[in-house]
Amino acid sequence: MRDILPADKARRERVLSVIRERYRAHGFDEIETPVVEEYARLHAGIGGDNEKLAYNVLRRGLDADAIRAAADDPAALSDLGLRYDLTVPLARFYASNRAQLPAIFRSIQIGAVWRAERPQKGRYRQFVQCDIDIMGDDSSRAEAELMVASLDAVDALGLDGATVRINDRRVLDWMLESFGFGADERPGVLITIDKLDKIGPDGVAAELRERAVTPGAVDAFEAFLRRPQTREYLPYGEAQIRKALPADAPDEIVDHLVGIGEAVAVGRASEATDAAGIPLVFDPFLVRGMGYYTGTIFELAHPSVSYSLGGGGRYDGMIGRFLGQQVPAVGFSLGFERLVDLVTAGGDDREEAIVLVHDADVPVAELLAHKTALIAEGARVRLERRTKNLKALLERASADGFTSFATVSAGAASLERKPLA
Amino acid sequence: MRDILPADKARRERVLSVIRERYRAHGFDEIETPVVEEYARLHAGIGGDNEKLAYNVLRRGLDADAIRAAADDPAALSDLGLRYDLTVPLARFYASNRAQLPAIFRSIQIGAVWRAERPQKGRYRQFVQCDIDIMGDDSSRAEAELMVASLDAVDALGLDGATVRINDRRVLDWMLESFGFGADERPGVLITIDKLDKIGPDGVAAELRERAVTPGAVDAFEAFLRRPQTREYLPYGEAQIRKALPADAPDEIVDHLVGIGEAVAVGRASEATDAAGIPLVFDPFLVRGMGYYTGTIFELAHPSVSYSLGGGGRYDGMIGRFLGQQVPAVGFSLGFERLVDLVTAGGDDREEAIVLVHDADVPVAELLAHKTALIAEGARVRLERRTKNLKALLERASADGFTSFATVSAGAASLERKPLA
Repeated sequence: MRDILPADKARRERVLSVIRERYRAHGFDEIETPVVEEYARLHAGIGGDNEKLAYNVLRRGLDADAIRAAADDPAALSDLGLRYDLTVPLARFYASNRAQLPAIFRSIQIGAVWRAERPQKGRYRQFVQCDIDIMGDDSSRAEAELMVASLDAVDALGLDGATVRINDRRVLDWMLESFGFGADERPGVLITIDKLDKIGPDGVAAELRERAVTPGAVDAFEAFLRRPQTREYLPYGEAQIRKALPADAPDEIVDHLVGIGEAVAVGRASEATDAAGIPLVFDPFLVRGMGYYTGTIFELAHPSVSYSLGGGGRYDGMIGRFLGQQVPAVGFSLGFERLVDLVTAGGDDREEAIVLVHDADVPVAELLAHKTALIAEGARVRLERRTKNLKALLERASADGFTSFATVSAGAASLERKPLA
Repeated sequence: MRDILPADKARRERVLSVIRERYRAHGFDEIETPVVEEYARLHAGIGGDNEKLAYNVLRRGLDADAIRAAADDPAALSDLGLRYDLTVPLARFYASNRAQLPAIFRSIQIGAVWRAERPQKGRYRQFVQCDIDIMGDDSSRAEAELMVASLDAVDALGLDGATVRINDRRVLDWMLESFGFGADERPGVLITIDKLDKIGPDGVAAELRERAVTPGAVDAFEAFLRRPQTREYLPYGEAQIRKALPADAPDEIVDHLVGIGEAVAVGRASEATDAAGIPLVFDPFLVRGMGYYTGTIFELAHPSVSYSLGGGGRYDGMIGRFLGQQVPAVGFSLGFERLVDLVTAGGDDREEAIVLVHDADVPVAELLAHKTALIAEGARVRLERRTKNLKALLERASADGFTSFATVSAGAASLERKPLA
């Protein structure tokens, strides 16, 4: 966890405000759930590996006997925990508040989550997630609305040219079954396939052989993986999807994937599109880690970086766990911390921000009169007493987003503004 | 704790965005600290009664022996806790990051805090605090900057006419000493005086007599309390402050209070002021609960409500606890949850928000084409399938801030927009 200093905080708030505004334009409504959820709900087996990383809150009012008894039952020490994602709280929220929500509910959730892991460089145990989800729509329109809104948000951040890699969990299940993998070995096979970008086809084939899964299935899968047309991605559409898959792919799944592309094409009609026409890429080897996905899965890619900038998928089974009634759901999570790193530093172009550098002997009334007049003009104003190292003072102000400065002496009637570098 | 639904969340974000924009204009910089702080820091005796209300986070990796041992030392169960205010984290932040901050640092902090208390109606265990603080300035300019910025923020929310009640902890100490109260009984006397608005002068005098504190001191205090001029508050300035206090009030404190008024007058010069001239009210009986205040204390009052909308004070001793070097500090906390309740509900006037109510048979491509065109025009757009109870559907959309609707049939070339009630 970390402190966020002024320049970084201003940039984060600017990014959030762009994302929020674009998602709202696309008809999503922001909600908020408590940071703390019930322990039992956080540890119900839905959150996958993240459950083990949860910070649990100490139950209040435990006496010495209760603590001693908890030695044999550590779960008794906690009744609450910090959320490790926004998806489990959303499913609980929807189940609790459904009567007050539209039939198809499009949510925005922006908030911190906590995971007790040894973070990699540039990542932290507290970090912000930025999710949109659609509940109550099982059609491909839902995926398309998520993708169009997210591409629009990323465009608005100045990161044009993003594409969405897409696959379907059912495609993976069907392929692995058709190659001959048994139901019990498929989860392990998926973990290996998920490494394809990192270790390549040779690495995947070798790791599958080490795992000693059904040998004939590995051969069939490897042959498929090495076909040239399997990874010829463009242009997106039925012909390409069928070409990229083994013969006889189920119509229902292919139709859903094709429908998403058609709807995204309409939603992006006002954007300049490249030769491929639709910013979608079908990738039959895209896996994504979370166990709760049941259908479409996708990731946001951008030419400037090798890692994904977000992703999501369908999780039609989860809300039923809380509501006792199935509700289709699909979500898209933007990688907020990564987006912040990519967005150019510096102040908000729309605002004038002035540092008034004053001598120690300027009367307070004069200083505040200057400040008040500039604020009334619409500027942002900071007072700074002149120091020996004026250059350092101005450099810090510039890093904090200030655009100009003026020096103030006692009795000065007007100020001369000079731009900051 | 509670879920926040779309209409309420939109209003909260609107209020935050106004406050944030105004505070930034006045030269304050937003920062963020982690929600979780070290247990020892949260329980160092600075947070007053709030320390007892902290949610503590269970230490990870405790084995059965460690849990059993903790029966005699419950603090061993936690190494972290949820913050119960933003002031203790700010003092820690300043001590950690001072080298990267301006000599006079003006901070904005907006974030949730947690207190395990039985909340009153309309209050919750998780709630948002919205603080500005100035570190490194011991002059009355600091108080004035806080007050002017906060009055400006409250004005911008449409709550014109707010005033600041002001006093100084040193005034209270000096008065109680001059009446003859002993140093050890003064904290108890302050607790009683703090109830003056609720129980009146008779109640205060009766409670002081019950507490059996120095009898002559109670008589002297009661006589002072019942003087008519003591509570003649306006207009703010040296004459009135001296008149409201016992004779021979220390010049240093009175000068500081007068200086704040002069500076606030300059800072508010562009606002219409009432006959009193300055939106300040000197109240020698204002106490405020927190033990860490060392000088000026103040509360934000508004004619529409009987409770305060915020407040703060000087706490020159706190940062030294973390830094080992004294740094003057003064802060103002807006009562965010109360402000949200006062700000009128309803959508953002600047935005057009349209619900497209469609028949089930409208092709997805047509629907999304309408949606895309409206978003490109700058509108916010939600799709809703027509239901039997159209009225209920439109009422909910209106509550969520939508301003108009149009019905969409298959093949319709254009849409007729109608205003929502």
